[in-house]
Amino acid sequence: MPVGTQGTVKTVRASDLEDSEYTLILANTYHLYLRPGVDVVAAAGGLHAFMGWDRNILTDSGGFQLFSLAMLRRRSEEGYEFASHVDGSRHLLTPRKVVELQTAFGSDVMMVLDECLGKPGDRSRAEESLALTLRWAETARPLHPGGGQAMFGIVQGGAFPDLRARAARVLTGLDFDGYAIGGVSVGESRELMERAVDGCMGLLPDDKPRYLMGVGKPEDLVDFAGAGIDLFDCVVPTRNARGGGFFVPGGHINIRNARFRSDFRPVQPGCGCFTCSKHSRAYLRHLFLAGEWLAPILATLHNLHYFASLTADIRAAVEEDRFDSWRSEWHEMRSLFDPTAC
Amino acid sequence: MPVGTQGTVKTVRASDLEDSEYTLILANTYHLYLRPGVDVVAAAGGLHAFMGWDRNILTDSGGFQLFSLAMLRRRSEEGYEFASHVDGSRHLLTPRKVVELQTAFGSDVMMVLDECLGKPGDRSRAEESLALTLRWAETARPLHPGGGQAMFGIVQGGAFPDLRARAARVLTGLDFDGYAIGGVSVGESRELMERAVDGCMGLLPDDKPRYLMGVGKPEDLVDFAGAGIDLFDCVVPTRNARGGGFFVPGGHINIRNARFRSDFRPVQPGCGCFTCSKHSRAYLRHLFLAGEWLAPILATLHNLHYFASLTADIRAAVEEDRFDSWRSEWHEMRSLFDPTAC
Repeated sequence: MPVGTQGTVKTVRASDLEDSEYTLILANTYHLYLRPGVDVVAAAGGLHAFMGWDRNILTDSGGFQLFSLAMLRRRSEEGYEFASHVDGSRHLLTPRKVVELQTAFGSDVMMVLDECLGKPGDRSRAEESLALTLRWAETARPLHPGGGQAMFGIVQGGAFPDLRARAARVLTGLDFDGYAIGGVSVGESRELMERAVDGCMGLLPDDKPRYLMGVGKPEDLVDFAGAGIDLFDCVVPTRNARGGGFFVPGGHINIRNARFRSDFRPVQPGCGCFTCSKHSRAYLRHLFLAGEWLAPILATLHNLHYFASLTADIRAAVEEDRFDSWRSEWHEMRSLFDPTAC
Repeated sequence: MPVGTQGTVKTVRASDLEDSEYTLILANTYHLYLRPGVDVVAAAGGLHAFMGWDRNILTDSGGFQLFSLAMLRRRSEEGYEFASHVDGSRHLLTPRKVVELQTAFGSDVMMVLDECLGKPGDRSRAEESLALTLRWAETARPLHPGGGQAMFGIVQGGAFPDLRARAARVLTGLDFDGYAIGGVSVGESRELMERAVDGCMGLLPDDKPRYLMGVGKPEDLVDFAGAGIDLFDCVVPTRNARGGGFFVPGGHINIRNARFRSDFRPVQPGCGCFTCSKHSRAYLRHLFLAGEWLAPILATLHNLHYFASLTADIRAAVEEDRFDSWRSEWHEMRSLFDPTAC
């Protein structure tokens, strides 16, 4: 799903996401709580009405932004005390508060408060942190408002498979509507990410959504879908786009490259996106070099379309029971990719 | 017409301009000459193909950018020698070169090279400059490529009505396809602008387009249309938008204002633009305060729609021979506008 931290996916309109057939976007509880404030979102009639998006919204727990963005964090049994990165004001986010906020937002999927540790390090620290995350999950679960809003638990436990397994057992015992694997995509190696996923996947029920948070690149989507993951979120399609990076079936190109100066082909011949239907590589390169606003917009539209197509291909391969051969072919194609031949 | 300096109108797509029923946009010869370069635009098949816009394009002469942007200018009888603001490279723009560039761009309307003096000052300087501008016009006129490309002359002469009149007489003698009034909207008072226009309007044929360059605000469009101007260009709709400024029938508001925090009405109730159809003032304010890319996009869409509607109203009033009463009512409405009551 595309990531829209503050009630929009960067550079595009809600109608663009609909055109690319996205049905779920992510918004950050932390950001929306600080600005515009839950009172404004609630007065608008919830986040869907506020941002003009009537498809699904998943809001996160705030745990990741507390880890990466907030200042002066103090974690206690009660929750997180922190200073806003916007204006320095002091706040307390508790497991209860995080549910209440997401209830007011009207999120279709809400996440429970967790602690995101970052790169896996010390085992005793990971163990202590996980125990708190699980106590918070136990506190949050009975607060589920129901009424069509799903609540997901978040598996933490660093790169320690037994901690991941412990988390999965406790959370499935609480019977959430879906399960997320958190604390990944925080700068660790692919091997450690796989270890974190392998530690818990077998214990998470396959009739409920399993969501790998903050992942990932196209190859991650392909491989972790193979491991059973149903749901991903990542800034890669939109962030890379803003730097001139375009995803194409074979890999990734940067349109600023001088070889595109007089290349009047679409970025991806045959692609049905707005950008490839309308504009050439040479024009896109020009817009990026000229620093035009339209450049990141057109790149984002293409990358959103690319990721939507990729996940549609994955779904079709799974449904038609040919995923393994599809994945092999996909990796084969990638291994042959020569960006300079684009 | 909307201004798109580098082959796009800032923040929006060509399809957005079509949706707002614009039929003509402006692109800058100076910018496109330096980047991506005339060879690239020509190889694309011209500017329409390069930027994906099949309606009309007017390209300017470069004179205004040479005045405002280029470094190390040296003006001679031959033309302008200057250093690129992009990379410092040295170039020479002559009356012939400017026609050749615009011929290669495939502009629907091309402008002849002129000297833009800025705020009216010394009369002898204005006189000397105008004489050169007129010699350049005489050089350029026979180079007209024809083939559907129109060529406009540019009236200069500062705020001196007799110089403006002299320019109009010389240029009409050259029988251009249309006439622009240049050297206005360079920081001078409204009174001086009116003096420049009044000096030449009566001498410009009313069966050819008369174009007031770089103008203007809504009240300028209304009043100078009353004086006979047919064509305007200005950055005001798009530049103000990027700062949070929205044009509304009564005047102008800035959506960042705190009073819009929980205001869930559209910016302009009843407005048919994408932004007013979809989003509230509170959401737009939030996007601006959060620094979201979507904020200037949505504001630009509204302002483009506002200016398109305003010019459509002007046209209808002229065609139905009720312009004077329409203009009086329009000014009356503006005089009653209270932005804090919005």
